[in-house]
Amino acid sequence: MRRARRHLESRKADAILLTSMSDIRWACGFSGSNGLLIILADDAIFLTDGRYETQSEMEVRGARIAMAGYDLFGYAAAHDLLAGCRRIVYQSDELTVASFQSLSGLFADVEWIGVKEVLVRDIAQKSDVEVERIREAQRLTEAVFDAVLDWVRPGISEKEISAEIIYRHLQLGAQRMSFEPVVASGPNSALPHAQPTDRKLREDDVLLLDFGCFLDGYASDMTRTIALGQPSSDVREVYEVVLDAQNRALAAARSGMLAVDLDNAARTVIEEAGYGKQFSHSLGHGVGLRIHEWPRISHTAEYVLPERCVVTIEPGVYLPERFGIRIEDMIRLQPMGSENLTRAPKELIVI
Amino acid sequence: MRRARRHLESRKADAILLTSMSDIRWACGFSGSNGLLIILADDAIFLTDGRYETQSEMEVRGARIAMAGYDLFGYAAAHDLLAGCRRIVYQSDELTVASFQSLSGLFADVEWIGVKEVLVRDIAQKSDVEVERIREAQRLTEAVFDAVLDWVRPGISEKEISAEIIYRHLQLGAQRMSFEPVVASGPNSALPHAQPTDRKLREDDVLLLDFGCFLDGYASDMTRTIALGQPSSDVREVYEVVLDAQNRALAAARSGMLAVDLDNAARTVIEEAGYGKQFSHSLGHGVGLRIHEWPRISHTAEYVLPERCVVTIEPGVYLPERFGIRIEDMIRLQPMGSENLTRAPKELIVI
Repeated sequence: MRRARRHLESRKADAILLTSMSDIRWACGFSGSNGLLIILADDAIFLTDGRYETQSEMEVRGARIAMAGYDLFGYAAAHDLLAGCRRIVYQSDELTVASFQSLSGLFADVEWIGVKEVLVRDIAQKSDVEVERIREAQRLTEAVFDAVLDWVRPGISEKEISAEIIYRHLQLGAQRMSFEPVVASGPNSALPHAQPTDRKLREDDVLLLDFGCFLDGYASDMTRTIALGQPSSDVREVYEVVLDAQNRALAAARSGMLAVDLDNAARTVIEEAGYGKQFSHSLGHGVGLRIHEWPRISHTAEYVLPERCVVTIEPGVYLPERFGIRIEDMIRLQPMGSENLTRAPKELIVI
Repeated sequence: MRRARRHLESRKADAILLTSMSDIRWACGFSGSNGLLIILADDAIFLTDGRYETQSEMEVRGARIAMAGYDLFGYAAAHDLLAGCRRIVYQSDELTVASFQSLSGLFADVEWIGVKEVLVRDIAQKSDVEVERIREAQRLTEAVFDAVLDWVRPGISEKEISAEIIYRHLQLGAQRMSFEPVVASGPNSALPHAQPTDRKLREDDVLLLDFGCFLDGYASDMTRTIALGQPSSDVREVYEVVLDAQNRALAAARSGMLAVDLDNAARTVIEEAGYGKQFSHSLGHGVGLRIHEWPRISHTAEYVLPERCVVTIEPGVYLPERFGIRIEDMIRLQPMGSENLTRAPKELIVI
């Protein structure tokens, strides 16, 4: 709340309205699905509905709680919770035009200041407790990865593997997956965002696995590409290029550098190997209470990476109709370098 | 596309921009995750990024396709796809303020007409093919429900049951769950939106199960409340009230009536039994490409229910710290009555 409140001053505002549930969770601890957080210079009020009476009392820190029903803006207006506020910051990237219209229609004489990514730099700087939660989620995901290695074999379909990955995460206590698992075999691995199909694994396939979960609110995320049977020399070559690219980025990574320079550390290796056009996405993204957070690490990301942010490093090369290779770790950035939160081995696994 | 295009005339507009992916799927068939559909009087253009080149060619009907990268608005501006358009309808409830600002900044001399729920009445009227898909998804969900009945017993936790429900859906070919399953036992069943906990089932619990999946794009949704061991007379009494309320609504339901009157058909029964305050949510909602669609069937819903819409009928009574009962079916509305798409039995199941 203290860090959120600083934006009142920098924006010369009287209030900040948070409407993103993950930002609200970050600011005051509430983990439910309906809420509005009003941050004033010397007060803060969290509004939610009756379903969350007990939960909000247990979770919310640094704010008063109001049971406001389902029309949170209406309640705020009827109870004059923004009395005296002339300049109010709202999240322009977290509110639809229609919702903003109903909000602004309720309050006269207010100057509304729409801000994109209002808290992203604060949220990016993870506390040790937050990093520990990400690490725990990642440990759980790696336990599932280990189990999958014991179990995948030719004849099993991508969808079956995906179902098994989800089931094992839930059995180990994950709240839910952080996204639908990517289980892409053979030529499907050349599609960076492939969805699992009925295709059955075959001898000599590569198999690209990209998955993660939420545990205690925080996300994990990893990608490994493995080989069924002895891989071709092409697969081995591309694998080495991608791994080399990742290792260069891991070695270069530190807070204080430009995100574009980190992207470039990996991209240069892939370009020099002649696969620049086949690395068609950005190098990574922040991870925390959301699976995709600021900062995005891309070839256009001209901003400084903050201390203690957790990001993925996930270079890939995709050869259409043949195969694709991606390797993804999560790291925490510090001024002198980075700490790898992922432990799973990275030599090419052959099963 | 034809039905969407009708809104050009009624809104006196030159173009409609669809930004909701499920609305885009409804209008042109595309099932991916990134797209923009521009509907003109005599043309339609679907924009997406390179990941979806093959998929869009296979799926899109009634629109030209443009591989536009990730900045779809920017591409539309650069390629003058809205040339000559003076009045343009956009989805004000499907676009953030920030996205609308970047959109409107790209086009000069345009009158932007923000419309909420622009296509909901069209989308609500399901074709026979759509109803068949909903029915198939529901058959899959009921197969899982049957299997769960063979398997739940005291000692199993809510989370374990939820994991099993998800796993079995995926094994049977579901794309994903339509929402996180509600598995609420004993006093937890009194929380209408309970999330699965580590609580283990006990003899004499009631167990409320609410779940569904997506299959072929369309959602299923059902709730049953069952009893472990012989239920108390209170449980039996409340169960009969809820079932009676549901049966009254099912008998009353037809297209052409006000949604509020349908809600009232069930609510009156519950009120007369003295549990009015314990039925704390609306009676139902539309189901289709989204799990929650228009129309909402609530005590304030003063609109006419259209022909061929598919809605849930899900009355409930929740007695805090004791137990809750909810029973939910999906029905299709016709002028002379309704057709129940749910087959699972509704007498109180005791296991």
